[in-house]
Amino acid sequence: MPSSIITLLTDFGIADAFVGIMKGVILGIDREADVVDLTHGIPPQRVLPGALILRSAVPFFPRGTVHVAVVDPGVGSARRPIVVETREGFLVGPDNGVLSLAAAVLGLRQIRLIENEAFLRQPVSQTFHGRDIFAPVAAHLSRGVTPDTLGPRLDSLVELAVPEPRSSAAGVHGEVIYVDHFGNLLTNITAGALAHFPVQRVSVSIDGKPVAGPVNAYAAVPEGAALAIVGSWGVVEIAVCGGSAAQTFAAGPGTPVTVVGVT
Amino acid sequence: MPSSIITLLTDFGIADAFVGIMKGVILGIDREADVVDLTHGIPPQRVLPGALILRSAVPFFPRGTVHVAVVDPGVGSARRPIVVETREGFLVGPDNGVLSLAAAVLGLRQIRLIENEAFLRQPVSQTFHGRDIFAPVAAHLSRGVTPDTLGPRLDSLVELAVPEPRSSAAGVHGEVIYVDHFGNLLTNITAGALAHFPVQRVSVSIDGKPVAGPVNAYAAVPEGAALAIVGSWGVVEIAVCGGSAAQTFAAGPGTPVTVVGVT
Amino acid sequence: MPSSIITLLTDFGIADAFVGIMKGVILGIDREADVVDLTHGIPPQRVLPGALILRSAVPFFPRGTVHVAVVDPGVGSARRPIVVETREGFLVGPDNGVLSLAAAVLGLRQIRLIENEAFLRQPVSQTFHGRDIFAPVAAHLSRGVTPDTLGPRLDSLVELAVPEPRSSAAGVHGEVIYVDHFGNLLTNITAGALAHFPVQRVSVSIDGKPVAGPVNAYAAVPEGAALAIVGSWGVVEIAVCGGSAAQTFAAGPGTPVTVVGVT
Repeated sequence: MPSSIITLLTDFGIADAFVGIMKGVILGIDREADVVDLTHGIPPQRVLPGALILRSAVPFFPRGTVHVAVVDPGVGSARRPIVVETREGFLVGPDNGVLSLAAAVLGLRQIRLIENEAFLRQPVSQTFHGRDIFAPVAAHLSRGVTPDTLGPRLDSLVELAVPEPRSSAAGVHGEVIYVDHFGNLLTNITAGALAHFPVQRVSVSIDGKPVAGPVNAYAAVPEGAALAIVGSWGVVEIAVCGGSAAQTFAAGPGTPVTVVGVT
Repeated sequence: MPSSIITLLTDFGIADAFVGIMKGVILGIDREADVVDLTHGIPPQRVLPGALILRSAVPFFPRGTVHVAVVDPGVGSARRPIVVETREGFLVGPDNGVLSLAAAVLGLRQIRLIENEAFLRQPVSQTFHGRDIFAPVAAHLSRGVTPDTLGPRLDSLVELAVPEPRSSAAGVHGEVIYVDHFGNLLTNITAGALAHFPVQRVSVSIDGKPVAGPVNAYAAVPEGAALAIVGSWGVVEIAVCGGSAAQTFAAGPGTPVTVVGVT
Repeated sequence: MPSSIITLLTDFGIADAFVGIMKGVILGIDREADVVDLTHGIPPQRVLPGALILRSAVPFFPRGTVHVAVVDPGVGSARRPIVVETREGFLVGPDNGVLSLAAAVLGLRQIRLIENEAFLRQPVSQTFHGRDIFAPVAAHLSRGVTPDTLGPRLDSLVELAVPEPRSSAAGVHGEVIYVDHFGNLLTNITAGALAHFPVQRVSVSIDGKPVAGPVNAYAAVPEGAALAIVGSWGVVEIAVCGGSAAQTFAAGPGTPVTVVGVT
């Protein structure tokens, strides 16, 4: 098996050298690995945003990619370090839910506890398992080590609860689950949910305030106007042309968004 | 033609996984490409700073490099996706001016509309052409696909207006066009403009306030003092030793800078 | 000698293209180099934090790695550009102390002045030696150029004073030397200093306020509680479970931390 791509997603920020150190450890084991940053800007110790971003990114990498996610408030405690083998590649990180959403979209095959010390950096520190456990395991997987050699099989992994939208006769009642760099508000209402309504016969509102659309481009409305669009996550998102919907609506995760049919 | 370097310049920030996703798409098409980040910190939807930074960087990459620039407020609208072939390499992005300054310094050869769907990621989203159009086209160019296969030739591309300095008998009247991370103020007055004056017989002022120099090093003046220097862009820049000229002078793009001869 | 890994540590930030430009120069000389970012978030012109971060990272890279550090307030002045050959690899940067702490941990072999213009980018600018001196020299070292060809041997390099802890009969009196992204407070008290005390019979305080531990995991105390732990730098660090110790204690470099034996 050839060397792979290894992606990194953490809450480490980029002011320290934590991420660079993980790359040094990886390249010391697999000199041919290509390491790609997904993001290191997950808010400190916030597992759900990490899991959502990871899920949004993994479908766009080639088969065999090893994805490492370290948002790990329980580092050094009893939470388990795991590897998830999927139909498309591997997920490596703490068993606190950060891998669970990505595992579902990639097709879970098996879960292994990381236990075999031969594949860890020694001594394992109390505070930086990204360096001592997850980076070296990812590099060994990239070189062709099989998950079976890492430790015993586990029956399940910690799952995260993502808020689900509620459907009624009138429409779909969802909420914002993520705010991106542009202030666009991503919801838990999928494009599929819109398909239940006659085309162009829906009305979208956020926190009770109606917005234009769904439209086909941010620039389909005048500068400063609010809109709904099916964005790159495949879900309804609320945006403001040339501005920030998060600021305009003082909105964030939990803010209600409703799609209703109109006659 | 061997696999190339692909550079990325965007306004995507680094808190989301947009950039990582583009790299996943690229590596899925050209596993041998080396992807280099120029910056992802262009202020959201500000085309001119993006074009200036791109122009400042492209001369330092090897021949054959593919530069992708995505500052794209019109994504999904009628603005055209294009490839510019230059004497030194390729530029890929929206036709809104972001490529125009770099095209001029690299030597424009031809412009092609991106139209051939065989080289796009399907389905093309409404909001993320970086992922679905520009990244895959860059990777195909990197693998040796010729621009002629992408779509029809265009006669021109959208040009950006960069403020030009004004010359008088007394001197050159320019302005700040960019503020860098250190608060240094880069102007539109080139080193060449200084050559019209006898060496060491010029006086530089910003917003009417004189500064030292042009000097040969930031540290040529005492800590806290303001100076003019010909910096790495090859233009006159205003700096403060050990401080931020942007803060000291409350200055930014548009602030007037004057170089006059003294007797 | 095969192509190497080249790491970059600077205070350039990531809003401009300075770092990308250095990578372009490197890849133009050594197309096979793997360039790894340590961080570009060193506070502008602050040499000591740069030296501390560099020291914390270099042990985790494979033998032969070339580390470039550019925190360089004296660029263009009389400060010398140098290469340090160590037992494990090379250090490249200005001779202002930024390399000195890493040189000590990697095992200094020799110091060379960078003087041979054949290995520089011409013309050398007045303000961006990262691009014109340090990046090209690193790439030539990566390709196998020996330090001896770069310039004359130097007897010493500029050393930085890192605050040393003070020992008394009662305990060790140190201080915070660095604050990381999570607000954890890293001190100058090494794990070794704790070994002088009977296990579990020490009390740690910051600014006179006692904290729990030393503990074995951040999560060993309740959310919001303060603790001491031997972290990934191998020193005592002060943290707050699920929070920021820097904020909780309004602490930063220089804040006193004391470890005393208890009976």
